[in-house]
Amino acid sequence: MTQAIARTTDNKLKPTFTKLVSKEGSAEYPLKAIHICEETFAPLEVAYDYDAIKAQVSRESIAAGPNSIWRYKAFLPVESENPIDVGTGMTPLVKSTRLARRLGLKNLYIKNDAVNMPTLSFKDRVVSVALTRARELGFTTVSCASTGNLANSTAAIAAHAGLDCCVFIPSDLEAGKVLGTLIYNPTVMAVKGNYDQVNRLCCEVGNTYGWGFVNINLRPYYSEGSKTLGFEVAEQLGWKLPDHIVAPLASGSLFTKIYKGFQEFVKVGLVDDKAVRFSGAQAEGCSPIAQAFREGRDFVTPVKPNTIAKSIAIGNPADGMYALDIARKTNGNIESVTDAEIIEGIKLLAETEGIFTETAGGTTVAVLKKLVEAGKIDPEESTVVYITGNGLKTQEAVQGYISEPLIIEPKLDSFERALERSRTLDRLEWQQVLV
Amino acid sequence: MTQAIARTTDNKLKPTFTKLVSKEGSAEYPLKAIHICEETFAPLEVAYDYDAIKAQVSRESIAAGPNSIWRYKAFLPVESENPIDVGTGMTPLVKSTRLARRLGLKNLYIKNDAVNMPTLSFKDRVVSVALTRARELGFTTVSCASTGNLANSTAAIAAHAGLDCCVFIPSDLEAGKVLGTLIYNPTVMAVKGNYDQVNRLCCEVGNTYGWGFVNINLRPYYSEGSKTLGFEVAEQLGWKLPDHIVAPLASGSLFTKIYKGFQEFVKVGLVDDKAVRFSGAQAEGCSPIAQAFREGRDFVTPVKPNTIAKSIAIGNPADGMYALDIARKTNGNIESVTDAEIIEGIKLLAETEGIFTETAGGTTVAVLKKLVEAGKIDPEESTVVYITGNGLKTQEAVQGYISEPLIIEPKLDSFERALERSRTLDRLEWQQVLV
Repeated sequence: MTQAIARTTDNKLKPTFTKLVSKEGSAEYPLKAIHICEETFAPLEVAYDYDAIKAQVSRESIAAGPNSIWRYKAFLPVESENPIDVGTGMTPLVKSTRLARRLGLKNLYIKNDAVNMPTLSFKDRVVSVALTRARELGFTTVSCASTGNLANSTAAIAAHAGLDCCVFIPSDLEAGKVLGTLIYNPTVMAVKGNYDQVNRLCCEVGNTYGWGFVNINLRPYYSEGSKTLGFEVAEQLGWKLPDHIVAPLASGSLFTKIYKGFQEFVKVGLVDDKAVRFSGAQAEGCSPIAQAFREGRDFVTPVKPNTIAKSIAIGNPADGMYALDIARKTNGNIESVTDAEIIEGIKLLAETEGIFTETAGGTTVAVLKKLVEAGKIDPEESTVVYITGNGLKTQEAVQGYISEPLIIEPKLDSFERALERSRTLDRLEWQQVLV
Repeated sequence: MTQAIARTTDNKLKPTFTKLVSKEGSAEYPLKAIHICEETFAPLEVAYDYDAIKAQVSRESIAAGPNSIWRYKAFLPVESENPIDVGTGMTPLVKSTRLARRLGLKNLYIKNDAVNMPTLSFKDRVVSVALTRARELGFTTVSCASTGNLANSTAAIAAHAGLDCCVFIPSDLEAGKVLGTLIYNPTVMAVKGNYDQVNRLCCEVGNTYGWGFVNINLRPYYSEGSKTLGFEVAEQLGWKLPDHIVAPLASGSLFTKIYKGFQEFVKVGLVDDKAVRFSGAQAEGCSPIAQAFREGRDFVTPVKPNTIAKSIAIGNPADGMYALDIARKTNGNIESVTDAEIIEGIKLLAETEGIFTETAGGTTVAVLKKLVEAGKIDPEESTVVYITGNGLKTQEAVQGYISEPLIIEPKLDSFERALERSRTLDRLEWQQVLV
C-alpha cells in the first residue's frame, strides 16, 4: 500500500469515525453521548471516513492484529490506543456436519458466541466498545437496561475496567442471569415490569443522572460492536461473504449491524460484493417483526412479550423496521417459532454439535429448521446461523424437558442393571417410532 | 530450516509420538488403550521423538496454525490429519491490573479457561485429545468418571464427533453440571458415592466393556492435552516462561503436564530455559497433597472429601506424589484454603477482573492471596494463575453470599429511593469499616 496513512501529531493513527448522522434525513451531530436526532427523532448512527479506513487496513494487517474484536478497530468508534480488551470476539465459526446432515444442508456454519468472552454472549462485543467509548467521553458510572445478557456483560467489563456500574433488569429474569450479574458486585435494580418498561425508566434516569447507558445515550457507539459478527464471519470464511445468514431479532440492531459490517468490508475492498440473504428469528410469544413481515407491513406494532426466550423478548423493537427492510430487500425471511420448538432447537443443537445455547439460540436453530423445511433455504447455499448466548444462563427453560440421570450404587451389577434398563427403554422407543 | 521433515509415504507428517513408557522403571508399551505398567503398576506416559518435533515446528509455524490447541499438534499424541477441533484452547492470558493491585503484585497474569470452548473448563483440552485418539483406536463408545466438568466436556465433544457416550458422576453434583451434561443426550450414571468410588466403578466397567474411558484406559493420551495450558502461556508471554505459576490440584495431573509442556518447549528450542516455581492450590476439605507437602511426606494419604470445591475433590489423587515432587524441586508451595476463603476468592476475581469462576478457580485465587500474604510470592515475579472453570456451573456455591437485587417499581421515584437506600447502606458499611 503506497497511500500515506493519516496520523495525529503524536504519530497515533487518526480516528476513522467522524460524526453522528441521523438514520432519517441529513442532520449531523458531534461525537458525544447522544442517540436521537432532535429533528426527526430517528436514531443516530456513527459515520466513518472509509478512505481513511482503507488506507489503514488490509487482510494481512487485520490477521496480524489482536485475537479479539479489536483487530477491526479501524471500523469501530473509539479513539483509545488501548481499548478495553478482555478477549472478546473471534469465537469459532464451526463448519457443521451433524446438524447440517440432520437438516439436509450442505454448507452450514455455526457462529458460536455461546463461548464469547467474558460473559458468554454476543453482548460482550457491544459492551467492550461502549465502555471504551464511555471512558473516552469521561463517564465514571455506566449503566444499561437489560434482559440479562447485557447486564452480565456490562457488570463484568465495568468491573475489569474499574468503572462504577448500575444495571436495570426485569425482576422475573432467569436465576443464572441475575447471579451472573450480582457476582461482579454492581448495583442491580430489579424492576417490576417487562423489558420495555425497564427501558422507559432508564431513558428517564439517563436524562437526570450523568450516567453512560450503554444501550441508550451510548447506543450509536455500542451497537457498532455487533458489526464484528459480520467481520469475523467474512474473515473466517476466507475473506468471503456467505450466501445466507440466520440471526435472532430482539431490537433488530444485531441484524442491521451484521449487514453494515458486510457492506463496509465490501466498501473498503476486503471482500468481493455479493448478494447475502438475511433471515431473522423471533419467538412466537414476542414476534412483532415477524408479524409485520408476514402481513407485508413496513411498520412494527408493539406487543406484550410472553415467551421463555426472555433475552429476545422486546415488544417494541427500536430497529424493527430497519430489520424488516433488510430481510425484504435481500430476499430473506423473518419467522417465529413456539416455546416448544425453541426447546427442541436447544436440544437439537446440543445433541448434534455439542453446543449448549440459551433460548435465543434455540429460537434461531428452530427458525433455521422451519425455513429449510419450507424450502426457503437452498441446501447448497452457504448459510451461517448465529448462536448468541450460552445455555447455562437459562437452565430453567430446559429443565423437565431432558432425560434424567440413572441413579446407581457404586457397584458393577447396579450399573449393568441400569444400562440394560436404559437400552430396553431405547429399544421400546424405537419400536414405538417404527410402529 | 534446512532439515528434512519426516513424512509418511502419502506425504503426511509422521506422528511424533513413539511409545508408552512407565513413569517408574524402564518398561515400554505400544500405543494402545492401556494406562498402567504391568510390572510396577505405575502410570504410563506418552514418549515423543523430540528431534522429529523440532524438525516440524517453529514459532512461526505454530503462530500460523489453527486458533486452538491443535496449533501444538506435533506435541500431542494423535495421528489424524483432522483432529476433533471445536475451537478448544487459545483462551485469553489477561494481564491483571485491578486484582494485581489489590494483592500487591506487579506482574500477575490470569489464564482464563473459564471461557474455554465448548464447555467452559480446561477439560475441553484433554477431551479433544482423548476423543481424537479414541477414534483412531477404533472406539465407538466413550466414557469417563467425572466430578462434572469432564462429563460436560466428554458429552459435548462426543456429540459433536458422533460418538456414543456414557458418563459416570457422583449423584450429589451441582445442578448446572448435571444439566450441562444431560443436554447433549448421553447416558448419565449418577453414582451414590464420592468421586473415588465412581472412579473405582469405572475401572471395573473399563475392564469388562470395550469402551474408551478418557481418564482411565485413554489416560496417557488424555492427560497430554493439559500440556497446552503450558504451551499457550509461553506463547502468549511472547515465547517466554513465567517466574511462577499457581494452579489447582485435583488428581495432580494438570500440574505435572503444565510442567512437562514448559520443559518440552525448552527441549525443542522454542523458549529459553529458566527456573519456574510451581505452586498448587487445594480446598482444605480435600487437601491430601497440601497435607503431605506441609508434613514433608513424599507419599499422599487418601482423605474423604468434604468441600464445596467438588470439581477438585479427589481424595486419592493419582498424580499426587508427582505434583508434590514438582512443587518441592521448583521451590514452590502447596497450600489449602477453607470453603469461606474459596467463596471470597470467587468474589474477589469477579469484582476486580470481571471473571466469574467456579469453586476450583476460587480456591486458586484464595491460595494465590494466601501465598502473597505469607511472602511466598515476590511482588516482582511474573506470576500466572490458572482459572480452570466457569462460575455458572457452580451457582449454588455463592448463593446466599452475594448481595441481592434492589426490587423497584418502573418509576423514577422508586428508583431514586432505592438508590438513596443503597448509598446509605454503603456509607454505613464504610463507617463500620472505619470504626
